[in-house]
Amino acid sequence: MVSPIDPTSTAFLLAENRNMPMHVGALELFKKPEGAGRHYVREMFESMRDVDEVAPLFLKRPYRSARTAGQLVWRPDEQFDIEHHVRHSALPKPGRVRELLELCSRLHSTRLAWERPLWEAHVIEGLRDGRVAMYIKTHHALVDGVSAMRLLASVLSTDPDKREMPAPWARTPERPKTSQERDKAEHAAGDVPVQALRTALGVSAEAAGLPGALVKTLRKSLRNETSPLSLYAPRTILNQTITGSRRFAAQDWPIERLRAVGKATGTTINDVVITMCSGALRTYLLDLKALPEQSMVAMVPVGLKAQQSHLPSAEGGNAVGSIMVQMGTQLADPGDRLQAVHRSMRDGKEALASMTPVQILAMSAVGQAPAILTPVLRMQGLVRPPYNVIISNVPGPRTTHYWNGAQLLGTYPLSIPINGMALNITCTSYDGLMCFGLTGCRRTVPHLQVLLTYLDDELKALEKVAGV
Amino acid sequence: MVSPIDPTSTAFLLAENRNMPMHVGALELFKKPEGAGRHYVREMFESMRDVDEVAPLFLKRPYRSARTAGQLVWRPDEQFDIEHHVRHSALPKPGRVRELLELCSRLHSTRLAWERPLWEAHVIEGLRDGRVAMYIKTHHALVDGVSAMRLLASVLSTDPDKREMPAPWARTPERPKTSQERDKAEHAAGDVPVQALRTALGVSAEAAGLPGALVKTLRKSLRNETSPLSLYAPRTILNQTITGSRRFAAQDWPIERLRAVGKATGTTINDVVITMCSGALRTYLLDLKALPEQSMVAMVPVGLKAQQSHLPSAEGGNAVGSIMVQMGTQLADPGDRLQAVHRSMRDGKEALASMTPVQILAMSAVGQAPAILTPVLRMQGLVRPPYNVIISNVPGPRTTHYWNGAQLLGTYPLSIPINGMALNITCTSYDGLMCFGLTGCRRTVPHLQVLLTYLDDELKALEKVAGV
Repeated sequence: MVSPIDPTSTAFLLAENRNMPMHVGALELFKKPEGAGRHYVREMFESMRDVDEVAPLFLKRPYRSARTAGQLVWRPDEQFDIEHHVRHSALPKPGRVRELLELCSRLHSTRLAWERPLWEAHVIEGLRDGRVAMYIKTHHALVDGVSAMRLLASVLSTDPDKREMPAPWARTPERPKTSQERDKAEHAAGDVPVQALRTALGVSAEAAGLPGALVKTLRKSLRNETSPLSLYAPRTILNQTITGSRRFAAQDWPIERLRAVGKATGTTINDVVITMCSGALRTYLLDLKALPEQSMVAMVPVGLKAQQSHLPSAEGGNAVGSIMVQMGTQLADPGDRLQAVHRSMRDGKEALASMTPVQILAMSAVGQAPAILTPVLRMQGLVRPPYNVIISNVPGPRTTHYWNGAQLLGTYPLSIPINGMALNITCTSYDGLMCFGLTGCRRTVPHLQVLLTYLDDELKALEKVAGV
Repeated sequence: MVSPIDPTSTAFLLAENRNMPMHVGALELFKKPEGAGRHYVREMFESMRDVDEVAPLFLKRPYRSARTAGQLVWRPDEQFDIEHHVRHSALPKPGRVRELLELCSRLHSTRLAWERPLWEAHVIEGLRDGRVAMYIKTHHALVDGVSAMRLLASVLSTDPDKREMPAPWARTPERPKTSQERDKAEHAAGDVPVQALRTALGVSAEAAGLPGALVKTLRKSLRNETSPLSLYAPRTILNQTITGSRRFAAQDWPIERLRAVGKATGTTINDVVITMCSGALRTYLLDLKALPEQSMVAMVPVGLKAQQSHLPSAEGGNAVGSIMVQMGTQLADPGDRLQAVHRSMRDGKEALASMTPVQILAMSAVGQAPAILTPVLRMQGLVRPPYNVIISNVPGPRTTHYWNGAQLLGTYPLSIPINGMALNITCTSYDGLMCFGLTGCRRTVPHLQVLLTYLDDELKALEKVAGV
């Protein structure tokens, strides 16, 4: 009863080591429903644990032996123990967000053991404001970050009165979607299609046999240092070998504030997100006397319409590309930084639109999977970092959602720092909020949480510049 | 900077798998000192974490590569991260002992990853009675259970006013012992010397090259089914293949109650401990309609004076032997069970005293390390369980001890169930209490915690029989 593991997942499993656990996570905050009893969190945990049947995705584990000829395969865990995977935890006093982030940092630092299915969920009580938290961790070989956020969203409902709702890992008859939900899923702006992403990664995973066209594209982009697609960034302290210790910080801001800045300055919400990161990193590195003279470069995955990218797509979906955004960190003025980011994003989108499918695949491969592509980059003589930081923006549900009456207040992604890329910033939008999740190596990126303050400072500065 | 791993430790590392994690644990309960502030537990955690220097034992991890010719060696963890090892946890509401035991069960179910030093310590708050708990987990390749309990005790003091005391993993100048403590350590009744234990295990670990004399001894003991040393027990549900899920239960009883029963019936405290287990297991298996007709057999490690055992000992210490105790589980009367256990223990001690050193080593080997000896036992054609349950009684400090003013209220051992031996009962005495720790496979030993009630019932029944 074994099944093959696709090359991408295999690559993520094999790239993993103690310093680079390859799991993504999500922190979700819920508000207890009206009239919740004293044992509400325990009951929530129990209903998550006591599922009738677990979906096959959550029952399989990687396995390798002489009988599989040394190949990694998926195998059902015959001693599956849901109590190992679904856990009830509590925060130490005083139960501030700080204690929650510390717990998530610690949970996110620990590798998932291959001897069991590659996921964990923690229902967390003890926040002094009465909210309930859930931290969920899934190996990248099972789902990528985008799919993980979607999977979590898929079990939620817009109906606060709905009950008997399944846990994300429960096996259920195909959940019928409302037409509104289906519509949203298909037309969400900037939506990154999982299948295209996985295809791109699949290409990169087969690095040993990288097609000649890809190698040529890589070479070309390396030579052209000024291109918005070029892999050429200054050295910073973020671009070092990392350790296995993680620090996670999270906060949200009303999208309306970002939209207002964009509207007043002729830029997009995503431009504002990247400029917030740019300003925050500038202040952070200035504190440490470690700001590079050249602009730092952010790798930003963007969705492209299939037509625009010339990519054939059986599912009529989108392709994904990566833009290397000049963040303008060398500029002192927030308005200048915003315009620099805007220009760089615009140039990048134009360049991507003119690229061939193979070129886009190559870009995507490099952008999405540097960990498993490192040998290829080294092969190409790349000694400087290809970029300094990864900033992803994953759209989520736009309206208020509930799980068995508990209102989802925010959802924050935890991602994967890798060697040479010690900080990952992933944002997800939800119900009028832009939720930032910053995941870093605790040793390489000291005092990571101070970035939250600097993000807030930068948004205020941008609002001032924009006159909103 | 690698160092060799001794054969015993190697055997424990190699015997380990997902279903048989090879770590021992301890749960310690503390009373906060007078005037402890709101942040007492956090401060306790921080003082445990912020040690100046960590002792080498806690810095090494197993490592194997082509450069070590495939051999397992110890290697210092160059990215040692104390925050991974020392953790601050909290219990979900309502914070009863039940929630504490659930947390310990879960923590004890998870294997220690070889990529880091093989230990973890959790400072736990949230017990509703205000006590503070600490769960510590150490791989058997680092220390055995007895040494682990000693190591924990070694950092405690009898002085409630002493402060600035080190954590168990801190590197400190040799702690001078009071003469009273030294005296106690050397003369504690039934004290099991660690070195002798490890020597015995070392013999067993070299099972592939088991000396002819040992094999002969094993054969002989197998043939003689009535001997108190024979490896011949009825099948029970406890003697099955286990899974990796653990359940831990713990409780203590005043030693004075056990002593009174012993005094009135001419038996020892240890006889009473074993009879409590016998009666509890009888009731438990009757509930499940699974009580065997024959008496169940407990493997009980006992300390022997070096002289008595004819064993040369460089350190003037003791040897350790194992007695296969007929528990009298087939007898309905508690008094009859106590006498049966007493006779069996007495016969076993006499038999051990008449054995040669090699025979004792063979017994110890089988008794202490069935996990790593399984191939040998199978080689000898042993198809029935050699015994049904392991019951150890490890003496601990007799007086009240403190850590930085926090009074140690009780200390409960968590041990290692193995395939065929799904339940381990380890007791440790402390400050007038006999502290029981029951560690079992959650699936093979359902409702493990009910055994605590049955242990209590049995002690009451024995008191009635003894007229005390």
